[in-house]
Amino acid sequence: MIFYDLINRQRAHFSPNSWRTRMALAHKGIQPEIRDLLFGEIGNIRPGGDKLTIPTIEDKGRFITDSWNIAQYLDEAYPQTPRLIATGAEGQVLRFFQHWVQTTVHAGIARLIMLDLYNSLAPSDQAYFRTSREKQYKMTLEEIQGGREERLDAFRKSLQPMRLSLALGPFISGEQPGYADYLAFGGFQWARTSSAYSVLVADDVVYAWFERCLDLYDGLGRREAAAHA
Amino acid sequence: MIFYDLINRQRAHFSPNSWRTRMALAHKGIQPEIRDLLFGEIGNIRPGGDKLTIPTIEDKGRFITDSWNIAQYLDEAYPQTPRLIATGAEGQVLRFFQHWVQTTVHAGIARLIMLDLYNSLAPSDQAYFRTSREKQYKMTLEEIQGGREERLDAFRKSLQPMRLSLALGPFISGEQPGYADYLAFGGFQWARTSSAYSVLVADDVVYAWFERCLDLYDGLGRREAAAHA
Repeated sequence: MIFYDLINRQRAHFSPNSWRTRMALAHKGIQPEIRDLLFGEIGNIRPGGDKLTIPTIEDKGRFITDSWNIAQYLDEAYPQTPRLIATGAEGQVLRFFQHWVQTTVHAGIARLIMLDLYNSLAPSDQAYFRTSREKQYKMTLEEIQGGREERLDAFRKSLQPMRLSLALGPFISGEQPGYADYLAFGGFQWARTSSAYSVLVADDVVYAWFERCLDLYDGLGRREAAAHA
Repeated sequence: MIFYDLINRQRAHFSPNSWRTRMALAHKGIQPEIRDLLFGEIGNIRPGGDKLTIPTIEDKGRFITDSWNIAQYLDEAYPQTPRLIATGAEGQVLRFFQHWVQTTVHAGIARLIMLDLYNSLAPSDQAYFRTSREKQYKMTLEEIQGGREERLDAFRKSLQPMRLSLALGPFISGEQPGYADYLAFGGFQWARTSSAYSVLVADDVVYAWFERCLDLYDGLGRREAAAHA
């Protein structure tokens, strides 16, 4: 299996959606070969085909793209490994959790680190990144991140439902980590690898949970270089 | 089975946590006998015992209180009926959904309708309600609801992860309603039975979903009297 993943200028893997998949693969005991890419090289994964996005895996002659599709594919193609997404209603509630991560964790962190993220990228990726994000937000990167101190408290408060779950057990999924944990982990690992800004405080149960996640699978997450100021 | 539930001055059942349980019982095809109570009568459910809360059910000689405990009890005591809460990680993700409902739906709606809710209660319950809520919020009921127009847009925006799920299917749980739907339904039914204030707009997929939920089980939710202005 080949895993196509983005790297920044210090060659750290930073994509939040990729981290979901990297943790999911570790959960299943699958060790893919990693192919490092810049944003500008995504088009080379499969020349001439439809545009793929990151993460993409190549397995048994097929390309599978999008973290949710990949998780479903892994459950089907490797049925002897621990399942990530339940069938039926339970899988749909997990999908809601992904939507919560997207609208609360990712969107919140984006407004705290966007300019740092830009600065962490390889120089050849920066023009593309600035243009695409400024078009999406209808603001400059400087404006997206600007005034982050005033948004920090609201971001931390928005994690309250996660905090209530972490009061019941070490992981969102209970005693053992599951795909919900990897979904949320991706967002915080994106912040850790892209910015030295502290999005969490050390006495928060979410911080302690993130530290536990960094230690999973022989420190798979922790081995990735954190951004430095 | 006896179901102890709160009523307001127009004898409508309004408790959000009770609505979770009422829908869960209907999901399982169980029809309890309903015993209507005022806040001031909760202590009479089981004189001399520990204080119970609403919802409480009495079944096979036992009292079970708290909507989550009741759902777990029903799954165990009635194993031949459709399950509400999966075991393991999936049940924990559903619990997260409950935390999201509590911190986002209930907390948001509370700041939109608290004074209307007070006015909808039986006069003999109002002094207790005012004292307990004002202590909890450290504000008067008038201040809790005051300025609600300025919070309405943020409340509606906070439902965005639900909206993304409802873009994929008619219910949060997928093609058929599940306990996640009943958890969220409770909050909106609380608003509908306690206040004429429109917390949702008619062109929102969340509004359409709520209408679908009101129709479930022969209109169980819709038969309950809505508050009028």
